[in-house]
Amino acid sequence: MKTVYLDNAATTSVAPEVLEEMLPFFKEEFGNPSSFHSFGSSQMEAIEKARGQVARLLGAKCEEIFFTSGGTESDNQAIRGAVKIDSARTGIVTSAVEHPAVMETANVLEDEGNSLGIVGVNKNGELDLESLKGLVNQQTAIVSIMAANNETGVIMPLKKAAKITHEAGALFHTDAVQMVGKVPIDVHALNIDILSLSAHKLHGPKGVGAIYIKKGIKLPPILTGGHQEKGVRSGTYNTPGIVGLGKAAELALTHLNDTASKERKLRESFEKQVLESCPGSFVVADGAEYRLPGTVTIIFEGIESEAVLTLLDMQGVYASSGSACSTGSKNPSHVLYAMGIDYTLANSALRFSLSRYTTKEEIKRTVELLSKVVERLRSISPYTQ
Amino acid sequence: MKTVYLDNAATTSVAPEVLEEMLPFFKEEFGNPSSFHSFGSSQMEAIEKARGQVARLLGAKCEEIFFTSGGTESDNQAIRGAVKIDSARTGIVTSAVEHPAVMETANVLEDEGNSLGIVGVNKNGELDLESLKGLVNQQTAIVSIMAANNETGVIMPLKKAAKITHEAGALFHTDAVQMVGKVPIDVHALNIDILSLSAHKLHGPKGVGAIYIKKGIKLPPILTGGHQEKGVRSGTYNTPGIVGLGKAAELALTHLNDTASKERKLRESFEKQVLESCPGSFVVADGAEYRLPGTVTIIFEGIESEAVLTLLDMQGVYASSGSACSTGSKNPSHVLYAMGIDYTLANSALRFSLSRYTTKEEIKRTVELLSKVVERLRSISPYTQ
Repeated sequence: MKTVYLDNAATTSVAPEVLEEMLPFFKEEFGNPSSFHSFGSSQMEAIEKARGQVARLLGAKCEEIFFTSGGTESDNQAIRGAVKIDSARTGIVTSAVEHPAVMETANVLEDEGNSLGIVGVNKNGELDLESLKGLVNQQTAIVSIMAANNETGVIMPLKKAAKITHEAGALFHTDAVQMVGKVPIDVHALNIDILSLSAHKLHGPKGVGAIYIKKGIKLPPILTGGHQEKGVRSGTYNTPGIVGLGKAAELALTHLNDTASKERKLRESFEKQVLESCPGSFVVADGAEYRLPGTVTIIFEGIESEAVLTLLDMQGVYASSGSACSTGSKNPSHVLYAMGIDYTLANSALRFSLSRYTTKEEIKRTVELLSKVVERLRSISPYTQ
Repeated sequence: MKTVYLDNAATTSVAPEVLEEMLPFFKEEFGNPSSFHSFGSSQMEAIEKARGQVARLLGAKCEEIFFTSGGTESDNQAIRGAVKIDSARTGIVTSAVEHPAVMETANVLEDEGNSLGIVGVNKNGELDLESLKGLVNQQTAIVSIMAANNETGVIMPLKKAAKITHEAGALFHTDAVQMVGKVPIDVHALNIDILSLSAHKLHGPKGVGAIYIKKGIKLPPILTGGHQEKGVRSGTYNTPGIVGLGKAAELALTHLNDTASKERKLRESFEKQVLESCPGSFVVADGAEYRLPGTVTIIFEGIESEAVLTLLDMQGVYASSGSACSTGSKNPSHVLYAMGIDYTLANSALRFSLSRYTTKEEIKRTVELLSKVVERLRSISPYTQ
């Protein structure tokens, strides 16, 4: 059975070019980049090449990029590090729709005594900038606002949020895991201080990511040890992973405009066809000003999303009921809740996320299957009798 | 030129069987293990298989194994986590010969207000158990003693150290990165509470490791987020890396006795030949009761180790002047210093570390080259004129 993978916001396939670039570092090129001998130290060249590839994708300088084990580690370092820089500034401000790597970390730090302010969103999932203004102050260490939401695809006003943050003298961090590689981003133009990204969301390997830290900011490490990455992140270099991230970043940059335009067309066509063929369905955050090209959450009123997912799954079509990042969580989405969507509707939400490999045929097949599945479930649902 | 790799304490080659096991998870099996759909969730089986493979190598239960990004992260979590468990116990005790991932973390926490006690070693690099007794007390949160030293190969008396630790009611952690897969270890028999290991030291991939946490101990996470690994370590599962670590652990267990015996014979023969052919050389920690089978540091009096390394390197023989873990460090080894070896001698130290792939022919070639190199350097050294 040919499968259709529409869960690219959870993770993406590794691009064949990325794996090809990684393989030598699992085979003959296995040395430790920190070693004195040429067999190890020659690998630093590959690592520095990858650093350049990531920097170019972000509009950053090479020396502003540090490799980590992934988005979660980068987010943790951003927040846990920032609250340690200045003992007079220990407050955290974040949004109500963040990924758990930010949200949970902020909550844990609040339990440990840091103040925490939560910025709300409107019914389209867009950040309430006025609320941000009211929450950030002279005690704020860091404001962390995601670049694009992992469930709705809504893109946040980073430049405006960064400006408000800087007026209060705090650091501005963005979890850009969902955005990097999907739409252009320029950290300097947007005045971002710290940015998190993950390789496996842009057709790179799992277990590797990066943190951009604007030159001049001394962000304390959360992993201490052998002083790799200028002491910003200790631990033996994951050379294959880093090389894979670099190649993935290069490919993303090459395809950036084409991918965005292709994904947008496919997603818009998908939305249109689903709304037409499935009565009682609507697109979440439909009125948002900016959304990611390839991510959409659709609510099918009166139907449990897990039932739809199961029936799609049986036919080899893979989507999501929200974030895959909260393992085994049965709670309804905090993102939809923050947008004022009630529990019952939130339980009827399905996320479809495309990639540059998604085809028109796959979208067609998904729409056809979806309309049948929704019709079938509607016919047996107690809510729709 | 055929090369000889004798720097396996820095990192090892990925076993072909390990890479083979990983590859499907870079290709068709790329889903997110935390996803609801079968395409992702089926990967949890592979992860649980790997957990069993690692558990068996350590004599642990599956539920005591948690996957991390490597030894440095595991060490950081052990120490940073342990000092948070009980506010009445915030002290750290460690040895003078630890890896930077432990040493530096302990130093950073001391700067933040935690008390720190350092246990010395004797001239053979063996732990001073009487000193440990004097340092551990009712305020101690954790005692962290490495299983085997990365420079000398000296194996520490873990069972005795754990007993002393437990008598004071503290937790016992061991950085076993150098020991796991080289000699048998049984965490329950040794009464170890927390253990760190790294895949790339036992022919697994870089960027993945594990932490063993004895059942019943609630070690706080250092990476918070989506509650993967029962909340002990958040972050998207690095499935290929975890599967690779599992296979590497399985292979290590299969070969354990053969490898230890083969490496020991080769290393002893290497030592004997080097001492015979290079006058003024001696083996560090030669009188230690227990050493790793395949790791040895030899001091060549009157010669700078970096000169030897460079000349060996030019002939394709790769060794080390100590740890590769402190990037770019030019300081003499803190391990040798703790053993009472002076600065000049420490600068003449070379580490050779074998693996199960090391051959008799490679050892022969290294000895021949080494004697020539040492003779040549002696002839131009101002110290030996």
